[in-house]
Amino acid sequence: MQTQNNHFFQSNESVHAVQWTDKGVKILDQRLLPDQECYELVDDLEGVIQAIQTMKVRGAPAIGITAAYGVVLAAQQHYSLDSVNWKSNVEKDFSRLEAARPTAVNLRWAIQSMRESISSIDGEPSSRLLDCARRIHQDDYNANRKMGALGAEILANANGILTHCNAGALATGGYGTALGVIRSAHQSGLRNIYATETRPWLQGVRLTIWELKQDNIAATLIGDSAAAFLMAKNAIDWVVVGADRIAANGDVANKIGTYSLAIAAKYHDIKLMVVAPTSTIDWTISSGASIEIEQRDKNELLMNFACYGNNEIEAWNPVFDVTPNELIDVIVTENGVVKKPNSLAMNKIR
Amino acid sequence: MQTQNNHFFQSNESVHAVQWTDKGVKILDQRLLPDQECYELVDDLEGVIQAIQTMKVRGAPAIGITAAYGVVLAAQQHYSLDSVNWKSNVEKDFSRLEAARPTAVNLRWAIQSMRESISSIDGEPSSRLLDCARRIHQDDYNANRKMGALGAEILANANGILTHCNAGALATGGYGTALGVIRSAHQSGLRNIYATETRPWLQGVRLTIWELKQDNIAATLIGDSAAAFLMAKNAIDWVVVGADRIAANGDVANKIGTYSLAIAAKYHDIKLMVVAPTSTIDWTISSGASIEIEQRDKNELLMNFACYGNNEIEAWNPVFDVTPNELIDVIVTENGVVKKPNSLAMNKIR
Repeated sequence: MQTQNNHFFQSNESVHAVQWTDKGVKILDQRLLPDQECYELVDDLEGVIQAIQTMKVRGAPAIGITAAYGVVLAAQQHYSLDSVNWKSNVEKDFSRLEAARPTAVNLRWAIQSMRESISSIDGEPSSRLLDCARRIHQDDYNANRKMGALGAEILANANGILTHCNAGALATGGYGTALGVIRSAHQSGLRNIYATETRPWLQGVRLTIWELKQDNIAATLIGDSAAAFLMAKNAIDWVVVGADRIAANGDVANKIGTYSLAIAAKYHDIKLMVVAPTSTIDWTISSGASIEIEQRDKNELLMNFACYGNNEIEAWNPVFDVTPNELIDVIVTENGVVKKPNSLAMNKIR
Repeated sequence: MQTQNNHFFQSNESVHAVQWTDKGVKILDQRLLPDQECYELVDDLEGVIQAIQTMKVRGAPAIGITAAYGVVLAAQQHYSLDSVNWKSNVEKDFSRLEAARPTAVNLRWAIQSMRESISSIDGEPSSRLLDCARRIHQDDYNANRKMGALGAEILANANGILTHCNAGALATGGYGTALGVIRSAHQSGLRNIYATETRPWLQGVRLTIWELKQDNIAATLIGDSAAAFLMAKNAIDWVVVGADRIAANGDVANKIGTYSLAIAAKYHDIKLMVVAPTSTIDWTISSGASIEIEQRDKNELLMNFACYGNNEIEAWNPVFDVTPNELIDVIVTENGVVKKPNSLAMNKIR
């Protein structure tokens, strides 16, 4: 499904979640995986917002890239309707786009990049904004390749690793963050790869297992609850995950359950690696306590059992949690690696 | 659904998983809950073995009770066919019954109790074996009421508790072990009750939430992965679980994920209570390392996605894990409470 507009993908990479085409942005609908591989063409901002809200596209970097392409579509439309006031009209769209999902900071980061690009444009904006969005996309891909190499170097002696959720090509501009490191480590010989199923949305079984299968990388699925027991069996020496937002002190918001894995890893003297591009770092917050954690519909847990209807059963469904920096051994970014992250150590990649 | 043969249930207890009737043992099919409340009459040993293997009935004490009733049915049949050799013919059934599920020790314990009863019988065995099976059932119920009182006393100042899997009336002869304590604590005013969904079989959302709802006890459902984050929010001060087998040193085999909760609880200075009758203690093993952990079908995790067919995707699906005694604050049994369990402390309830 590679398009002529994404020259940077390598031929052995088969999964591309977000692609720009002449008719708009093409999105692999991740709600339908693994059994249906269905691409949808989105040609306006409303479609982009809806795709992010409903998790057709998910993963912090992929959300940012999709939003950037969404700004191109919005600008095209506004310019064609009103070539004088189009900039202020696009600006009005930004708050709705930013609100599509609250936790991943890449969304706001991408919008800010596009906003800065808009401010310097005279005349028809399509070509220059598309250049900017494509650069965001390509930079993300390049960052993932870089992080893959840096992370794999650290994992050189690892016998087994566990990943959580999906921080792969599906979640990014391609190649993946945590799964990028795992891809690179697999090329260097790593074979014992475990993936959690990742309730409630099942990103692990539906996305990670599927994505690795596309590239012929064998992985073993476990229940989220089995991770600590796997650690007790000495099956892994690293947990490798992505991030949705990283605070200036290295606290990490990531998929719900990451915190639990981090605690269990510490208990077993197993190491935790977080892999994320610098666009995931929110330098405006000093710690993870300030990160807004998205709460999703309780029916993701209640599973629509009829006897629980009428809203009578309560459920608490935060879909991210915050792992404090003291539980993290290393944060891998495209600008370098931060060992034992804290405010001081994080500054070296700022 | 109370029957005249189970006089010991109290009128405000609505859930009875296993009941003896004149026609055999009546089992609430727990695979169909919560949306279908379907009782099945089982009138021979094959039906009992199948009900245990397929998890129509589950929970260590309930499995033991059902097996005891199964021995009654087997003895009735063998005696009617061959009143001379019936004892040796029943004995041949025991190994198949014991093998129905490997981890819960109550199954072997109940069979051994029935075996001892058989050895002293002359003539038609039905009445005396039924007395024995009913005593096992009633003793379990009485033990649960006793543990409920003992556990609730310990939880007197608790503001919030979390339970895992289903250790309730559905898993026992009635009232429940962990849920018995929670029922008793609820009567004393405890209101903040959380339950994990408990993948892969979803005992939490399907059974615990349903069972508590029958008794008008409100509980909040969380994903298994959200437990550590709930602890970080200071929402609970105790984790309360049942057990499938307890070693002589107080190591506890229980539903997969218990170990993970125990580690997270220790990290947050939250206490862990295990509630189980002494029939769950396997005095023949000195530590949890000797406990056989049941592995179930990988499709419980792979969820029958068509694209994962042909057995090409690996999954690791242990359905129990072992929590070492140093992570357990208290074991509550009908013979008393063991604080900071170890081999020495366990001896006081032997």
